[in-house]
Amino acid sequence: MNPRRPLAAHLRLARTEGVGPVGYRKLLLDYGDAEAALAALPARARAAGRASRLRIPPPDEIEREIAGTAAIGGRILVLGDPDYPAMLADLHDAPPVLSVLGDAARLGGRAVAIVGARNASSGGARMAESLAATLAAHGVSIVSGLARGIDAAAHRGALHGGAPHGGNLGAGVTIAAIAGGLDRPYPPEHAELQNAIARHGVVVTETPLGIAPQQGHFPRRNRLIAGLSLGCVVIEAALRSGSLITADMAVNYGRTLFAVPGSPLDPRCRGSNDLLRRGAVLTENEQDVLAELPPAPVARPQAAGPSSPPAGRPAQEMKAGEAPLPRPPSGSGDMRDAILSLLSFTPTPVDDLVRRCQFSASAILTALSELELAGDVETLPGGSVVLPSAPTDTGRPWNEMRNPETE
Amino acid sequence: MNPRRPLAAHLRLARTEGVGPVGYRKLLLDYGDAEAALAALPARARAAGRASRLRIPPPDEIEREIAGTAAIGGRILVLGDPDYPAMLADLHDAPPVLSVLGDAARLGGRAVAIVGARNASSGGARMAESLAATLAAHGVSIVSGLARGIDAAAHRGALHGGAPHGGNLGAGVTIAAIAGGLDRPYPPEHAELQNAIARHGVVVTETPLGIAPQQGHFPRRNRLIAGLSLGCVVIEAALRSGSLITADMAVNYGRTLFAVPGSPLDPRCRGSNDLLRRGAVLTENEQDVLAELPPAPVARPQAAGPSSPPAGRPAQEMKAGEAPLPRPPSGSGDMRDAILSLLSFTPTPVDDLVRRCQFSASAILTALSELELAGDVETLPGGSVVLPSAPTDTGRPWNEMRNPETE
Repeated sequence: MNPRRPLAAHLRLARTEGVGPVGYRKLLLDYGDAEAALAALPARARAAGRASRLRIPPPDEIEREIAGTAAIGGRILVLGDPDYPAMLADLHDAPPVLSVLGDAARLGGRAVAIVGARNASSGGARMAESLAATLAAHGVSIVSGLARGIDAAAHRGALHGGAPHGGNLGAGVTIAAIAGGLDRPYPPEHAELQNAIARHGVVVTETPLGIAPQQGHFPRRNRLIAGLSLGCVVIEAALRSGSLITADMAVNYGRTLFAVPGSPLDPRCRGSNDLLRRGAVLTENEQDVLAELPPAPVARPQAAGPSSPPAGRPAQEMKAGEAPLPRPPSGSGDMRDAILSLLSFTPTPVDDLVRRCQFSASAILTALSELELAGDVETLPGGSVVLPSAPTDTGRPWNEMRNPETE
Repeated sequence: MNPRRPLAAHLRLARTEGVGPVGYRKLLLDYGDAEAALAALPARARAAGRASRLRIPPPDEIEREIAGTAAIGGRILVLGDPDYPAMLADLHDAPPVLSVLGDAARLGGRAVAIVGARNASSGGARMAESLAATLAAHGVSIVSGLARGIDAAAHRGALHGGAPHGGNLGAGVTIAAIAGGLDRPYPPEHAELQNAIARHGVVVTETPLGIAPQQGHFPRRNRLIAGLSLGCVVIEAALRSGSLITADMAVNYGRTLFAVPGSPLDPRCRGSNDLLRRGAVLTENEQDVLAELPPAPVARPQAAGPSSPPAGRPAQEMKAGEAPLPRPPSGSGDMRDAILSLLSFTPTPVDDLVRRCQFSASAILTALSELELAGDVETLPGGSVVLPSAPTDTGRPWNEMRNPETE
């Protein structure tokens, strides 16, 4: 048997249209392994009421992705892989697949995210660089999103350990979560920075090789940033900026939120100051961050292999001993209608849905994974669901957007 | 009878060495009026164990202060005067005497203090000016200390209503609490600003006419700023700066504390950011302040005249129905020794003293006013007591200090 085969099957399942993070875990539970799940998928999608044919990527497409990733020195981790980071595995919507460049084991270190404005002030960038350097010197990995401004300053600060023109490149570990494929650094002028991060840290994405970053990829990148970190520091975020979305995800994942104060005269500080108002930890230096970090996580037993369900805190839909639910239970049509009636084209948190439905949380999660498979809902990073866009919208290719990163 | 006579007697009592704010109220309670208290003082000081002769200012010195204040258009308010501001009268250590220039009735309006660094950044000064202007436009008087930097910007913002070069001088009310006498504006280059404030607001001090500001006057000025205001906004205060002392006084007086966030890279923002960390209200604009102000105070019945005890919330040492204690009770020597043993050359809050003594609070306050009269302790604004400085220190004249305002 091809040693790649379990990886290929998992990757194929994860890359199948309508299979989101929650559905992926549920399918593995229901059918025992990825091959069985793939075999059952078309009938299950039809049974769930899917109108169009389900697109499962052909095996050669998956083999090309695996070979291409290896060719650039990268590696694909599926949920359950020993190197898959525990912080992410513990999330109820853990990404099924991560593509990484660099030492994947470093994804498991104690990490803190630093995010903020792309049009950062020079003071904000200095703050990010210095905070990253001093935290990295304390053995904390710095996670960010490779964007211009605060992100790049944070990566550089960690890499250079606070000596930007010194020779000690690799002084600290930094992790870049990116929106596109590993071979598509964005923005393009950060290609060299991404290379340096891959050599001295890790670059990670959920997006397949060869795919340029598109607007819909950024929430997934932000989820990786929040999920990989014990805490998230926001420096210079305007109101309604993408950094605040990452901050919300961090809070939803139970991470500690930190914010650096700034002058009210600078619109770039309005969002971060507002986080302070809402209870974020006021952060002036690395001590403010270190004082709030939870103790180092205890080493956990590794999962047996890629096909076993991930170890760690069981997510709500994966309670130990819960019988698999291979088919929608009778009467589930009512539940699906009830759920659909509560959804709209703006994301609804799954928690809200559970509160507003008379059904149990596990029944709702099961119904949602069926609805996603049927193409009737989309699940979003951070635990929200949304109705798929109207046809006029879906017809517009994302890559026509001038600037995909509309944070 | 000279209509000035009750004023003169109160002023003479207040200007007597060893009579602090708490002792002043107690003497009036014990002896019924200021004349009787003055007559009894020398014997009482001797009985309290005072070694040197008590200096009571001669009547002509007091008359000169009253006439001189009137000559520059000023006025002296004693505690209990109908125009004496209720916010100050309610303090347990209310200043016995205020010298004012301008419309004294304006001391009673809804007011907010704005204080901060003398070496303010241009952004900090702009923030102070804009916040003062917008608050003043909402009918809130702006209290500050006439210092360089944030103080002056706050006064100017209120005066000009946010149009610094416009013709609408007097758009809002501002109150300058100053450290020296009314005829000694400090710093000297703010003489014109003080004149403008006197015309369109109020200038207020506890210091007699003709006395240049000395280091020991600044805590009293800071107490006026905190006491006259419903809340205190701190903009750009370094760690251990005088603005933080004003902020502490404001908190001790039950005022709401506000702080404007600033970049951690600017040492001028360390103290104000620290206030945010300790719970001050994060302030970006006037709405943040207005939302936290208590409702407008209810009008209170005016006190009958200057010799009656001040109306309002009775202070701890002035409980209604408590019998006057004209002489130290027998056995009070033990109490005085116990109190002295707990004091040092660094200020001790009276509340701490009460907690650490086995005597009642009212007995301790009585003993403290005797100790002050005896010259054995000094009471400080904000409710602390301290042993008088050692002779080598008291010998150094304050006015030799190069910059008296060592905030």
